[in-house]
Amino acid sequence: MHASDLAVPFPAVEPSTPAAQAAQLLANQRLPGLIVVDEFGSPLGVLPGTRLVALALPQYVIEDPALAGVVDESAADASVRLLGGRTVQDCLRAGQGELPVVRLDATVLEIAALMARTGSPLVAVTDDADHYVGAVLVGALLDLAVSG
Amino acid sequence: MHASDLAVPFPAVEPSTPAAQAAQLLANQRLPGLIVVDEFGSPLGVLPGTRLVALALPQYVIEDPALAGVVDESAADASVRLLGGRTVQDCLRAGQGELPVVRLDATVLEIAALMARTGSPLVAVTDDADHYVGAVLVGALLDLAVSG
Repeated sequence: MHASDLAVPFPAVEPSTPAAQAAQLLANQRLPGLIVVDEFGSPLGVLPGTRLVALALPQYVIEDPALAGVVDESAADASVRLLGGRTVQDCLRAGQGELPVVRLDATVLEIAALMARTGSPLVAVTDDADHYVGAVLVGALLDLAVSG
Repeated sequence: MHASDLAVPFPAVEPSTPAAQAAQLLANQRLPGLIVVDEFGSPLGVLPGTRLVALALPQYVIEDPALAGVVDESAADASVRLLGGRTVQDCLRAGQGELPVVRLDATVLEIAALMARTGSPLVAVTDDADHYVGAVLVGALLDLAVSG
């Protein structure tokens, strides 16, 4: 069994995609994250929903747990609406480590080890030309694990 | 707006729950993770699906990317079925850092900052007696962020 057997169509966005649009995709379809591809269709990484949430917050609020509790409530509600004008590019971290990307012929074990190392619940799958063709979700691997 | 407005019923497991049963819950319901509670109903942490995948793999396979690629394919398929006999307890890491847990009166900003810090796509919500009552999903926060 290979990535080609497990991959499913999965939405991808580009660095220029507005962060609000990415948030809408994630929220409406209850996705664990989005695949980010460049202009040629090659995967650049996976964008988890929590990173979009982080983008919507001032850094000092993230870093100081006590502070979030004392900010005025209406200001708190407003703070999570700061995504306007930002793009997916703003969520991509430079040097985010190993990319959760495999080729179509990757084995189940390779995909599982990659998920375990990166902690990413989805792995992008590419063809021989490095074009994104779909994703393997952690649920598919867990299905295999329990169907044995 | 507070955790009490955003929390939804969400499955919880105990440390003694078989890992295979947790995997089945995650896979069947396509959940981003499970809440783990102790015998008194107090949250112990969040169990992401990727940690169950990691549990199903020998440690040396996770650590050596090259190795996963050269393991015999039938052995590779078999390796992800190693969950039998393991429990959720085996997936819980000691000292896993800040717990993604808030009280019912936590503000949106507190929940968002906690998600940003921990990277957890779900946060357990407890009542005054520290009993688990539901979870806030990252999608609910993103809904808020885009509905502003």
